[in-house]
Amino acid sequence: MSDKLGIGVIGVGTIGSVHTDAYAKVEAAEVVALCDIKPDRLEEKGRQHGIETLYKNYHDLLADPSVQAVSVCVPNALHAPISVDAFRAGKDVMLEKPMAMNQQEAMQICQARDAAGKVLQLGMVLRQHANSQVVKDLVSNGHLGEIYHMRVVRVRRRGIPGLGGWFTTKDQSGGGALIDIAVHSFDLALWLSEYWQPTAVSATTYAKFGPLMEDYHYTGMWAGPPDYDGVFDVDDYATGSVRFGRQATMSFEVAWAANTAEESFVELLGDKAGVRIGDSGPVKLTGELDGRLSDTSVQFATQDGFQIEMQRFVEAALGRGEPAATGEQGVVIMKLLDAIYQSSAEAREVTIS
Amino acid sequence: MSDKLGIGVIGVGTIGSVHTDAYAKVEAAEVVALCDIKPDRLEEKGRQHGIETLYKNYHDLLADPSVQAVSVCVPNALHAPISVDAFRAGKDVMLEKPMAMNQQEAMQICQARDAAGKVLQLGMVLRQHANSQVVKDLVSNGHLGEIYHMRVVRVRRRGIPGLGGWFTTKDQSGGGALIDIAVHSFDLALWLSEYWQPTAVSATTYAKFGPLMEDYHYTGMWAGPPDYDGVFDVDDYATGSVRFGRQATMSFEVAWAANTAEESFVELLGDKAGVRIGDSGPVKLTGELDGRLSDTSVQFATQDGFQIEMQRFVEAALGRGEPAATGEQGVVIMKLLDAIYQSSAEAREVTIS
Amino acid sequence: MSDKLGIGVIGVGTIGSVHTDAYAKVEAAEVVALCDIKPDRLEEKGRQHGIETLYKNYHDLLADPSVQAVSVCVPNALHAPISVDAFRAGKDVMLEKPMAMNQQEAMQICQARDAAGKVLQLGMVLRQHANSQVVKDLVSNGHLGEIYHMRVVRVRRRGIPGLGGWFTTKDQSGGGALIDIAVHSFDLALWLSEYWQPTAVSATTYAKFGPLMEDYHYTGMWAGPPDYDGVFDVDDYATGSVRFGRQATMSFEVAWAANTAEESFVELLGDKAGVRIGDSGPVKLTGELDGRLSDTSVQFATQDGFQIEMQRFVEAALGRGEPAATGEQGVVIMKLLDAIYQSSAEAREVTIS
Amino acid sequence: MSDKLGIGVIGVGTIGSVHTDAYAKVEAAEVVALCDIKPDRLEEKGRQHGIETLYKNYHDLLADPSVQAVSVCVPNALHAPISVDAFRAGKDVMLEKPMAMNQQEAMQICQARDAAGKVLQLGMVLRQHANSQVVKDLVSNGHLGEIYHMRVVRVRRRGIPGLGGWFTTKDQSGGGALIDIAVHSFDLALWLSEYWQPTAVSATTYAKFGPLMEDYHYTGMWAGPPDYDGVFDVDDYATGSVRFGRQATMSFEVAWAANTAEESFVELLGDKAGVRIGDSGPVKLTGELDGRLSDTSVQFATQDGFQIEMQRFVEAALGRGEPAATGEQGVVIMKLLDAIYQSSAEAREVTIS
Repeated sequence: MSDKLGIGVIGVGTIGSVHTDAYAKVEAAEVVALCDIKPDRLEEKGRQHGIETLYKNYHDLLADPSVQAVSVCVPNALHAPISVDAFRAGKDVMLEKPMAMNQQEAMQICQARDAAGKVLQLGMVLRQHANSQVVKDLVSNGHLGEIYHMRVVRVRRRGIPGLGGWFTTKDQSGGGALIDIAVHSFDLALWLSEYWQPTAVSATTYAKFGPLMEDYHYTGMWAGPPDYDGVFDVDDYATGSVRFGRQATMSFEVAWAANTAEESFVELLGDKAGVRIGDSGPVKLTGELDGRLSDTSVQFATQDGFQIEMQRFVEAALGRGEPAATGEQGVVIMKLLDAIYQSSAEAREVTIS
Repeated sequence: MSDKLGIGVIGVGTIGSVHTDAYAKVEAAEVVALCDIKPDRLEEKGRQHGIETLYKNYHDLLADPSVQAVSVCVPNALHAPISVDAFRAGKDVMLEKPMAMNQQEAMQICQARDAAGKVLQLGMVLRQHANSQVVKDLVSNGHLGEIYHMRVVRVRRRGIPGLGGWFTTKDQSGGGALIDIAVHSFDLALWLSEYWQPTAVSATTYAKFGPLMEDYHYTGMWAGPPDYDGVFDVDDYATGSVRFGRQATMSFEVAWAANTAEESFVELLGDKAGVRIGDSGPVKLTGELDGRLSDTSVQFATQDGFQIEMQRFVEAALGRGEPAATGEQGVVIMKLLDAIYQSSAEAREVTIS
Repeated sequence: MSDKLGIGVIGVGTIGSVHTDAYAKVEAAEVVALCDIKPDRLEEKGRQHGIETLYKNYHDLLADPSVQAVSVCVPNALHAPISVDAFRAGKDVMLEKPMAMNQQEAMQICQARDAAGKVLQLGMVLRQHANSQVVKDLVSNGHLGEIYHMRVVRVRRRGIPGLGGWFTTKDQSGGGALIDIAVHSFDLALWLSEYWQPTAVSATTYAKFGPLMEDYHYTGMWAGPPDYDGVFDVDDYATGSVRFGRQATMSFEVAWAANTAEESFVELLGDKAGVRIGDSGPVKLTGELDGRLSDTSVQFATQDGFQIEMQRFVEAALGRGEPAATGEQGVVIMKLLDAIYQSSAEAREVTIS
Repeated sequence: MSDKLGIGVIGVGTIGSVHTDAYAKVEAAEVVALCDIKPDRLEEKGRQHGIETLYKNYHDLLADPSVQAVSVCVPNALHAPISVDAFRAGKDVMLEKPMAMNQQEAMQICQARDAAGKVLQLGMVLRQHANSQVVKDLVSNGHLGEIYHMRVVRVRRRGIPGLGGWFTTKDQSGGGALIDIAVHSFDLALWLSEYWQPTAVSATTYAKFGPLMEDYHYTGMWAGPPDYDGVFDVDDYATGSVRFGRQATMSFEVAWAANTAEESFVELLGDKAGVRIGDSGPVKLTGELDGRLSDTSVQFATQDGFQIEMQRFVEAALGRGEPAATGEQGVVIMKLLDAIYQSSAEAREVTIS
C-alpha cells in the first residue's frame, strides 16, 4: 500500500477526468479507484488514466480501504447523498460545484462532515486562477479602498450544456444557468469581499431558448448532443440585485443563452480604484496615480487552477492546511441561489436570514 | 407681427442656446425673446443669437404677447413653477429634462397644462437621434421578437457636472446622476417598449466621489468649474433592478463618477434578437439568419436631434401633430425615480402603483 | 473480407495522407491498400496509417480484388491515365483537382466512367467547408437576389510550390498558378451559381518570378525544397474577365507569386446583397435591412471538409447518393482553363463553346 | 487692367467654386468673371467669391476682353461645345474631367486648340495629390522594376451622384460610374505608366441600382437630392480587362453602387515591387530588401492638388511650362471609355486602334 493519500473519483465524465489528471500532478496523492454508472465510459477512462480498480457502484468504492478521500463529480442531485455517504464511510470529500441542490442539502453535507470529523473542500476553481489571486492581493493591499458595488456578468450567447439532459432537468440539476455557472462568479465575488453576507435579493429568471429545443441553434454544445426527447424546465437567463446590509450591493446578469455578445467578468468598484476580472488576459485596475486618472494592467504567470485545487485538498486531508473553499461558504452561495429562485417565483424581493 | 410661432427661451445657459439654435432651423417658428437672471450672460447670448428682446424676469417674458410658446431651460427646481406659470399665461411649453423634482410636481405640470388646454413637450432628445429611430423600427418590425429584459448602462468615470453648484445641490436638482442622466436612458428604454409601466424597483444609490470635493480629480467639467464652498448632497452612482409586472425586467448602472471604464448603452434582449444602442456608431443587432447565429450592423444618416425635437414641438403647438414626448410619460419616469430614491433610503424593494 | 468499401489510395504525398486520414473517419469505408512509386515514402506512410498492403505499381493495386474504389492523388499528368485504367478495372474513382491536363483528357475520363458504369467524384473540397455551405444557403434562400458579377482573388505573395519540380513543369502539371489554385476558386464560384456556362474569356498569364529561380526569395515552400536544376515553364500570375452569356461576368486575379499583399476570396455581387467568402472567419453579407444599409456576419460550426468529401464519395460508390462534384462540372472548369491559356497565348478574347 | 492672367469660370456648381478658390492662391492669375445659367446660384457665388462680373450666357463671358483663359466646369455634354467656342474666342482652356462625351468630341477639342494655338489642360487632379507624386517618383526611380499589371478598384457602396439629374442622364453625361469616376483612376494608372496605349478591352457594364430609383437607399448624396421624375439610363457598375499590346494588362472594377465594402485604389505590379495608392494614407511598397520580403510605407506632406493644378495651367497659359494633363492623353482615355461601352454593348472584346 502506497504512502500517498488514496483517492477515489466518483463520476468520470469530463470534470472527473480533469480531477484525475490534476491529482496526477500532486506528489502526496494517488488516484486508486474510479467509479461510474456507465460501464463503457468507466472502462475507457480507466485505460486512459491507467487505473485498474473500477467500480460501477459508489458504495463499493466507499467500502474500499485503499480509498481515503473522494472527488465527487456527478450530477447535482447526487452531490448531497454521495457526500453524506462518503463522510459516513470516513472519507474526506472534494465536492464539485454547485455544492448541492439547495441550502438544506448543503447544510446536511456540513453536518455529516462535522459528525465524521473529516475534510470538505468545494470545487471553486476560479479562485485558483492566477488573475483571481492577483485581484485578491490588490484588494488585500488596499488598492481598491472601500468596495461598495460588484458587477457580475457571465453571459453566453448559445451555451446551454447538454440540452434535454441532466443539466436542463430540474430534478437532477436544481436549476439552469444560475446554479451551473453563476455559482462560479458569485463565489469569486464573495471570496474577494471576505464573504460578505447577502441580506436580500430581487431577481428574475427566464427560460426563452431552452424550452423550444428544436429551434435552438448553436455552433457547439458542451455535454452534448441534444436529446430532443428530454426535458428543459430550468432557467437560461437570470438578472437581479443583491444587498449586503447597507454596506454594498451586487448586480448580476447570467445567461446560458441570450441574443447578445458573449461577456464574462466580475467587476469590483471601490472608492480608490476598480478592477475587472475577465476569464483571461491581464487584470485591469482603473484608478488614480498621484491625483491623475490612470489605468494599470497587471501581468502574471498563468497557473493550473485544478492542480492547485487538488494540492490544497490533499494538504487539508493530510492535516497540513485549510480547505481552499469551505462548506460554510458553499452554504452562503446556496442560500443566495434559493433566494434568487424564490424572488423570481414570487416576483418580489426576498430577505435572506 | 410675424406669421411664425413666437418662442421665448427661459434660461440661456448651454442648453438654452442649443434650443435657440435648433428653433432657427424650424421654418414655422422664431425665437422672439430670451430670459435669464444673469444679466451678462443674457446680453451675450442676445448678441450671439441676434435677439433684441431680453428679459431678466421670466414673468415679464410670459406677459409678452409676441411670445406664444416657451422653452424652459432652467435648474430642475424651477421646472414646475415656471411651467405652471407659463401654462397659466396661455403658453405652450417645451420643458427640458428631468420633468421636475418628483412625481408630485410632474403631475402639477400636467394639471396646469390641461387647465390651459396648451401643449407640453419634454426634452427627451435621445429619441430623435438616428440610431434610436433605427432601433424603434427594428422593434416595430418584429426583428427582436418578445423583449423580456433591458440593460441600461450610463457610466461616466469622472463626469460630475458643476461640482458644488446647482447640479449637486439636492434642493435645486432633486438628485444626482440618477435624475440628471439616467432619465435619458430610462426614457429611451421605455419609449422603445411602448412605455411599459414599472411595478417595483430594488435599488441603491451611492455618493463616493462628490462629497470629498477637494479629492475629486477630473480632466474636464461640464457646467464647471467646481465651487469648493458649495454643496454636494446627491448621488453619484445608482444601481438596481426594475420589474414590469411579470412581463419583463430592467437592470441599471448609472454613474457620474466611478472607477471603471466609461460605458453607455441601452440593450434590449428579445427572444428573436437583441440590440445595443450606444451613444454613436452603427446599430448592432445580434440574432439569427436562417437558423445561423448572425451579427448585423445597420447604417443610417445622422440627424440633428434638437432640430427635430423643436420641429415636432412647433408642429404640436400649431395643432398639426402630437408632442414628441408627453407629460404622462414624464410622470412615469418621475415615479420610477422617486421609487429608486425611496428604495435606496429604506434598503428594500419598493412597489410602484 | 470486410463489409466496408475497400479503398486504395494511389499516391501518398501530403494530399494522399489527407485522404487516408479522412477515410478513417468514414464508417462505411476502409483504406485497404496504398500505392506510391517512392518506396521509402510508401513504407513510412504504411506504418503511419497502419496499412500493410503496399504497392509500388498502381496496376497491381487496381488488380487487387479487396480494392473497390481508389483515390487518385498523383501529379496532374497522371490523373487521366490512372483514372481511365481504374474505371477499366471496375473501380470507383475519387480524383484530386485539377481534373486533368486539359478538357480533352477530362472528357476521356468521363467516357471511361460511363463505359464502366462506376462513380467519379472530383476533389473540390472547398465546397465542403462550412463557410461555403453557409453561402450556398444564402444564395438558395434568395438573400443575394440576382447575382451579376463574381470576383475571384487568390493571390499569394511568394507561394510557388516545389519550384523546379513537377508543379512547375508544364509536361507534368499542365500549367502553374491557374491550374493549381484557381481551379478551387473557379469551382466554388460556379458551384454557387448552379454552374453557369462560361461563354468567353479574355485573359493574360505571366511568369515573372519562377523563371529566375535563384532570385526567388521565400519564407516557406509547399512541396519544396527548390530544385534549381529543374524546370519552370508555367504561369505564376493570371488575370482576366469571363463572360457567362449576357447574364453575368467573373473577374479573376490569381498568383503563386506577386509583389502585393496576400488576399484570397470569392465575392458574389447580387442586386439585393453581396457576400465575400474568405479562407476562414465568419461570412460577411453586405446588404440592406428594412431599407437601411446593413452588414451581417454569419457564424457557423467549422467542419472537416475532407471527411465530408470522402463520406459523400463512399455514399455515392455504395449507390446511396450523388457525387459531391461531378466529372461534367470538372469538364467545364477544364474548358475554361484551356480558353484562358489560349486567350493569353493569342492575346485576344476566346469564345468557349 | 491687372497684370494677372484674367480667368473666367464657366459653371459655378461645386467644382466651379473649387476652381475659383484654387485660382485665388495662384499669384499670377485672377478670376475676373463667373458664368452660370442659374441666376440665383450665380449671384450667391459672386458674393461668396467677391467677383462682380457675372454672365448668364457663356458667349458673353467669352466676348469679355478681360478674360484671357477659362475654366470649364459644366455638365459633360457641354464640355466640347464650350471648349471649342472658347478656343475660337482665343482663350486658354482649363477643362474639367471627363474630357468630353466620347473620343470624337475629344479630338474636335484638340483640333480647335491647335487652330487657335492656345493651351488646353485637363482636370486630372489626382495626379497632383502628394501620394501620386510619391508613386510617380518610385516608378521613375526604378523601384518597381518592369510593371506588367495594374489593378483599378474604385467601388462605392451607395454613391450615385444626383440620382435622376444630369449625372444619370446619358444625353447630358455620356455615361455613369465609368465616365464619372473611372476616368480619374484610368488617367492615374496611365500617367504612372508614361501613357501606355490600350489595344483591346473586354468589359461589361451594369445598371442594377439606379433604374429602381425609389428602392435606392443611401446615407448621403453628392449633387443630390434625387429627382424621382428624372432619368437613369447609365451604368452603375463596370468591370473588365484591358490589354496594352503584349506588354501589360489592367483590370478594373468601378461602381457608383454595389453591395460590397467601399474600396478605392490603383495598384501597380512590378517584377521588383508593387505599390498600392489609396485615396489617402501612406504609400505602401511591397517588395524586397536585400533578398528578404519587405513592406515599406512611405510618408509625405499633403498638398493642395487643385492649387497645383491651377498653378500649372496658369504657367502654361503664360508660356512658362507644359500643361499638367494634355488633350492627347484625354483622347486616349476617351478612346478607352468608348471601347468599354462598345465591348459591353456587343458582349465581346473590342480592339482599340
